[in-house]
This record gives sequence, structure tokens and C-alpha cells, in this order.
Amino acid sequence: MSLHARQHAKVHSKQMMVLLLGVILWFFPVPSGLESFITKLPPSELPFDSQMAWHLFAVFITAIMAVILNAMPIFTSSILAVSVLILTGTLSARQAFSGFSEDWILLIIVAFLIASSVIKSGLGKRIAFLIIRRFGKTSLGLSYSVIAADMLIAPAFPSNTARSGVLFPIVNALAADSGSKVADGTRKKLGAYLMMSSMAGLSISSAMWLTAMAANPAGAKMAKEFGVDITYISWATAASVPVLVLYLLLPWVIMKVYPPEVKQTPDAPQIAQKALDTMGPVHRNEWIMAAVFIGMVTLWIASSFYPFINKTAVAFLGLGILMLANIFTINDLTHEGQALATLVWFAILYAISVYLNLFGFMGWIGENAAHMVEGFSWPLAYVVLILSYVLIHYFFVSQTAQMLALFTVFLNVAIQAGVPAELMAFMLLFATNFNAMITPQGSSSNVIYLGSGYIEAGEVYRVGGIITLVNTVIFLTLGTAWILLVS
Amino acid sequence: MSLHARQHAKVHSKQMMVLLLGVILWFFPVPSGLESFITKLPPSELPFDSQMAWHLFAVFITAIMAVILNAMPIFTSSILAVSVLILTGTLSARQAFSGFSEDWILLIIVAFLIASSVIKSGLGKRIAFLIIRRFGKTSLGLSYSVIAADMLIAPAFPSNTARSGVLFPIVNALAADSGSKVADGTRKKLGAYLMMSSMAGLSISSAMWLTAMAANPAGAKMAKEFGVDITYISWATAASVPVLVLYLLLPWVIMKVYPPEVKQTPDAPQIAQKALDTMGPVHRNEWIMAAVFIGMVTLWIASSFYPFINKTAVAFLGLGILMLANIFTINDLTHEGQALATLVWFAILYAISVYLNLFGFMGWIGENAAHMVEGFSWPLAYVVLILSYVLIHYFFVSQTAQMLALFTVFLNVAIQAGVPAELMAFMLLFATNFNAMITPQGSSSNVIYLGSGYIEAGEVYRVGGIITLVNTVIFLTLGTAWILLVS
Repeated sequence: MSLHARQHAKVHSKQMMVLLLGVILWFFPVPSGLESFITKLPPSELPFDSQMAWHLFAVFITAIMAVILNAMPIFTSSILAVSVLILTGTLSARQAFSGFSEDWILLIIVAFLIASSVIKSGLGKRIAFLIIRRFGKTSLGLSYSVIAADMLIAPAFPSNTARSGVLFPIVNALAADSGSKVADGTRKKLGAYLMMSSMAGLSISSAMWLTAMAANPAGAKMAKEFGVDITYISWATAASVPVLVLYLLLPWVIMKVYPPEVKQTPDAPQIAQKALDTMGPVHRNEWIMAAVFIGMVTLWIASSFYPFINKTAVAFLGLGILMLANIFTINDLTHEGQALATLVWFAILYAISVYLNLFGFMGWIGENAAHMVEGFSWPLAYVVLILSYVLIHYFFVSQTAQMLALFTVFLNVAIQAGVPAELMAFMLLFATNFNAMITPQGSSSNVIYLGSGYIEAGEVYRVGGIITLVNTVIFLTLGTAWILLVS
Repeated sequence: MSLHARQHAKVHSKQMMVLLLGVILWFFPVPSGLESFITKLPPSELPFDSQMAWHLFAVFITAIMAVILNAMPIFTSSILAVSVLILTGTLSARQAFSGFSEDWILLIIVAFLIASSVIKSGLGKRIAFLIIRRFGKTSLGLSYSVIAADMLIAPAFPSNTARSGVLFPIVNALAADSGSKVADGTRKKLGAYLMMSSMAGLSISSAMWLTAMAANPAGAKMAKEFGVDITYISWATAASVPVLVLYLLLPWVIMKVYPPEVKQTPDAPQIAQKALDTMGPVHRNEWIMAAVFIGMVTLWIASSFYPFINKTAVAFLGLGILMLANIFTINDLTHEGQALATLVWFAILYAISVYLNLFGFMGWIGENAAHMVEGFSWPLAYVVLILSYVLIHYFFVSQTAQMLALFTVFLNVAIQAGVPAELMAFMLLFATNFNAMITPQGSSSNVIYLGSGYIEAGEVYRVGGIITLVNTVIFLTLGTAWILLVS
């Protein structure tokens, strides 16, 4: 048997395994107790029962396992999952496709197209060369500088989707202009490492500031009902030590577990300088691109104060202007099939996650986690609950959705087990952010990086898993000690 | 000034004109009477007023005019329109993006990907060569054979989207294998002509059978309330003569107004025979493709009897199987940006059209059309009403939506003006189909053909306008005489 045929046979046997797993899960008896959580049904939804909730779970887990085992790409796995769910009547077509019209998912797609424009206009190249000239002697240096930029702009971006929409084009240009491209098979030279670093950076920059992620202020408000008063200052103080330690740690950890092929680039700064000289003064397209980009960023920041400024509408407006200026053309659009692929798989997995929650499945899991810690000492209960909360993110396609579904349940259980309320509230809110990389779909910012093709979904399960582990350990040890000290 | 610069200046002046038109329309006083039609508000929608209905109309017309005047592509025009609508508060983001989760719109997108698979598998090439061998001596012969195939399969396809999903890959392969491709600038050699012919064919094949379009049976049911009994046989009888005459006429008309660069290809059958010899026996990928395709078509047909079989889910299932079989790959997907472009502009225009209707704008137009014919003799009233119904399709992005919104209004007015009820009912139902080509977005089947790149949106306004005129004249003269004779 040839190598090619053997690889094929291996993939096929994996696909058979996944199919078998799916069939077994599907016909598995529905766990008792699940039916009592079916309470969140809004009147506009069709009726469902605990059998359907279980089937939804079975299909979701099978789809995720297919990706983890590398049996098929996440796109294939998602479209097969959605067709099974609809044709078996587990979800209606309306429910299954509801994610496609979510404006924040569409924002991810537009962010792709704008990132392409940043590169095409030449502005991406220029910014990338400026960064390389300053920090480009090592891959590690570039990684630190990208995450530092993220940390600094984070307080002004209450949407990590929008923030990754700012960072991604720069990282993308950094990779491409260092000679690491997806199209010619050199993604691992530098690009994959930088993208993974920036994703990891987002998982901690979002935890750093009260306004760095959409769910943070909502969580702070919910904590108030438990007597925990979280301010901008108290949040930043509590987060500061673990986040700074992780900032120093993560680029180095990723260098170990997911190294770039090129680590030392001593000549890069000079090459960048030469390239900048060749580019000459800033061109018309770069000026327009910069103006549109600054305009968009200004409106995105303003949108947190004026909710009528819809972020996706702003992005469409920016893209429209770039198209009128011929910086991005209809012809460029034909090469953006990856954006379509991302829209499809992410919208499908998001809808499944929403209905797992609506069908009561998440409430049931939360309740079981609560039962687990009965009779534990508070430190043990604390650790078990936080670990459970982190691991449950395997099933969630939105950090905000997990926070809304489980924050109160977990906080309540912990307080009853004797965990200090402020500690638990902070740690749950931080975990909502630092668990972002546990799956490719765990955060909408991941999705933007994956869409570039530099990183494969299977790699996120491995490297993202390690980063989530590091995040969790640092927050549970150093972070816990620090919060107890300052609170 | 260079030619290039002059072209740019021309486009820019057109864009300025469109912008000016938009501003004038926006600040135009709201027509009196519009507010009394704001009655269709479902409780889940946000409040709106006649000012918003007018603004929606102003933006929609401006976007359409931008395309007609060739000031910008339909994609650019749509994304600018949607951002203006959201940022001015005319539509909420939820309303404006609601089209993205419509399953039949997603079906169009999946149909694209499956069409690519048909070509890639080699099956498209084989079917195309078989057709060329038999009918390929002239472009006209190919055009007639494509429309004949459409007519014959139409009774089994109550969705013209699904039917164009079957026809499009074959027409696409016919074009590509005759050496007419978008990528190398030879779209006008043959492909554009064949695509336009097939679109025109769909506008009459849908009118031929009670089951050839989704809205037909619904319309027949609504006609019953006016005492008009429409059966499968009476429909086919009434449609037969005008449709057959148009079948003979349309390929010839398109040959005159939108001619292919190559008309005579006397050697084509022999070339096709040689190519078939070179291809040899049917390959593994062609067998799988054929099996998946037949399976999908069977399920699509079955879906009209078993509504739980969702057509889009079937398409996703088929695509998933093709991907597992490596006939369509993730890498192929990256070149399908055109499908994303289509999804975006069509979903946006569809949502605008839905809300023009919900905001009462369509009812207002229908009522005005009714006022127009007061005091007319019945033949004059009949002609004026049918012409209005056809022209109003400029504003509708769904044939079904127009039928549901206006069929009853127009039928009622006509009966009061003395038009025979059966004649009017038939003619409105036929017009719902034969007006399909009046705009690029006038039918979801158009959208599939346009997405190929063989035909440009501006061309549809011109050629589709002529075809709609021919359809209307034949139906109003010969068709009317025939219906009066047989009814």
C-alpha cells in the first residue's frame, strides 16, 4: 500500500470510529434529571423534549470529536452535523441556521475582508516593516510586541472580535512580509507561531480590563447581586499580577510547544529598513486605508457608549468605502472563500451551542458540577468548580453565553461551600476569558485567526489546551493568592 | 487624461449622481396615505413609522439605481445600503441581517459549491460533451436543448432554486468545456449566452406547471377564495400555448440582443466525441458524484411531499459526503468567494424587500395601482393591472413574497373592474413567474447564474428587461386569447 493510500485508509478508519461514537451516543439512554432543566423555552420556539436535548448533545460531541481526531475538517464536520440535526427533526431549519444572521458573526467575516484590504493597500506591509525594524531580531520579540499592542488597546475595545479585527491584519502582514505564507506551504516558518501567540494574548488581554470583553461588565453587574462590588480599578488590580506573569510566560511556552521554523532573524531589521526605503513615502491607497481604519476604530470605540452604532454596520460601511476607492475589488472577493467557510461552520456550531443551553443541557451540567462538590472543603470545592467551569467551555461557542448560563449557578454553589464570594466572582470572570483557546470555536477572535489558514483546528485543541492549562494553573495559584491579598 | 483615468472619472461622476439621488429621495416628503398601510407589524418587531418606510424605500431605490447605472457592483451597493439603514436606525441590525439565516438563501450558496464539485469530478464535462455531441453544431441548438431539459424536469421541482441547482452545473460545464470561461475573459464566447438562455427558460418553465414553483400552488389556493378552481390540468392547458411559443422565441431573441461570439460550431460534435474517447470509462469520482446528485435530487423531489425533508439540509448532507470522498476539498472552498459575495448582497436585498412589505410600502403601491384603473373598461384595466404587477417586481426580491403581498389585492380590483376572474387569476400567477428576469435579484435562480460571473448585474437589467417585455407581450396577447378560448 502506498503512503498516500495508507493515509487515506487511516482517515477513513477515523471517520468510521467517529460515526460509531455518534451512533452509540445517539442511542444512549437519556440521563435522568435532564428533563427537569427544560424550562427556558421562549414561546416563539417549537416544543422539544429531553430526548432531543440529548440528541443535540450527541451530534455536537461527535462533530467536535471528528475535528479533535483529525477525521475531517471543522467545516465538513459542521455541515454534516447540521444536516443530521435538521433531517432527524432535532432542530428546525430556522433554529439550526439562526447563527447566520447574528451581527457579531457577520462582523468576523467582514473583518477578514478588511484585513485583506489592509494588506493589499500596502499599509499592512508598512506597519509590519516598522514593527520588524524595531523588534524583528527574533520571533519571540515579535510575539511579545504583538501581545503588548493588544494589552494597550484592550481597555478601549469591549469586543474581542473587534480587537482581533484590528490585530489580525497586522499579524497577517507581519507573517506574509517575513516570507511565511499559507499559499506556498511556509505557514509554520513564522506566521503560525505569531497567530497562535496573538490568540493566546487575547485570552489574557480580555481578562486584564473590565472593558476588554463584552461579557465582563455584565458579569460584574451579576456579581453585585451576591454583594461583590467590582470596579474598574479593583478588576485591574486583581487581574494585574497573573496577567503580567502570563504575558511574560506565554510567548515562551508557545515557542516550546509550537515553535516557528525560524527563530533568529538578526538581519530582519536591516531588511525591513531597506524595504521601507524602497516603498518610499506613504501612497494614496495607504492614506485612504489608514483613514478608513481609524474611522472604523473610532466608531467601534464609540459604539460602547452609543449602542445605536452597530459594529457590523460600521465594518460594512468601511468595506464599502474601500471598494468605492478600488482598494478592495469584487475580483479580490472571489479569493475569500475561506471567509465563507468560517461563516458556515461557526454559525452552525454557535446555533447548536445556543440550543444546548435553551434545551436545558447546560443547566443540567452546572447542577451536576454543584453536586460534585457537596461536603468538600472550600479550597477543594473552589478548585474543582473552576476546573469544571474551564472544561465546560469545550461545549460553548461563545464566552458570553457560558458566562450568562453558568456564572450565577457556579458562584452560588461556591458561596454555599464556603468559598469567599469576591475570589470566586473574580476567578469565574477571569476564567470566562482565559479559557478562550480551549477549542477553535471557543472565542470569535480564534475564528478570525483560524480563517487565515495559518493555524489548523486540530492544532488549537493541542496548543490551545496547553495554553489554557498554563493560564488556569497561574490563575489558580498565583492569581488566587494575589486576589486574597488585595481584596 | 488617459482612457483609464477617464473611465474612473466617469464612474465617480455616476457615483456622485447616485449619492445625490439618494439624498433627494431621503429628504423627500413622505407621500400621504402611506401611514395607513402600516398594519402588518408582528408583535416581535420594533416600532416604526411611515417616515422609516419611506427612508427604506429611498435607500433601496438608490441601491438599485447604483447597479442599473453601473456606478458600482451589486455587492458594494448592498453593503453600503445596509450600513446606512442600520446606522440611521431605519432597520435594526437584527432586521437588516435576517436574510442570512433564510434556509432557501443558504441553499443557493450550497448549490454553488455542489456545482463546482460536478465540474471537478469530471461528471459535468462528460454530460456536457454528451449534449454537445448531440446538439452542439450551433449555439442556438445548445440553448434549445438546455431549456427543453428544464421544461421536462420542472413538474418534479417545486423550487426553482433547486431546479437551477440542477441545471446550472450542466450549463456551467457546457460553457467551460466549449472554451468559454470567466477567468480568461472569454465569458461572452458562449457561456454568457447559455446562462442567459437558461435563466430565461426558468422564467417560462416555472409558469408551465402548477408544481414548477413554490408560489404556484399557494396562488391556486388563494384563487379558490374568488371562486376560481385551478387544477393541475387546467393550469397546464392555460399555460401551454404561450409557454410553447415563448420556448421557440426566447433563444432566438437572446441570440439577437445578447449574441454569443461563436454561433456556428460545426466541428463541435466530433471534438466532443474525441474528448469522450479520451476520457474513457466513467471514473470513481464521477460515479460518486452521480450517486450523490441523484440522491439529492430524489430527496429534493420527496421534500414536496414530506416537508420535514429540508432542502438545504439535504444539500449540506450531499456536500458533506462529497467532501468526505475528497471530491470537493477545503482548498477548493477557498476559491468560492463569489458564493460569499452572493450570500451577502442577496440576503441584504431580500431583507430590505421583506421590510418594505412589512412597513406597508407594498400595500400602498398596490392600492395606488387599484386607484389607477377606476372607470376603465375591463380590457384596459386588465392590461394596466398586469403591466403594473410586472413592473412592481423591480422592488421585490422574492417572487413568492410579491405573490403573497399583491395577488389578492390585484385580483380583487380586477374583478371589480369587470375582468373575468379566471383570466386574471391565471395571468397574475403566470406573471409571478415570467417577470423573474426583470432584475438580477428578481428570482433566486437568477442569483445562481449571476454568481458564476458569466453574466453581470447590469446586463440582466437590459436583456432581462427585454425578455420580460417579450414574455409579457406574448402572454397578454396570445395567452389571453388562448385562456379565454379554453376556460
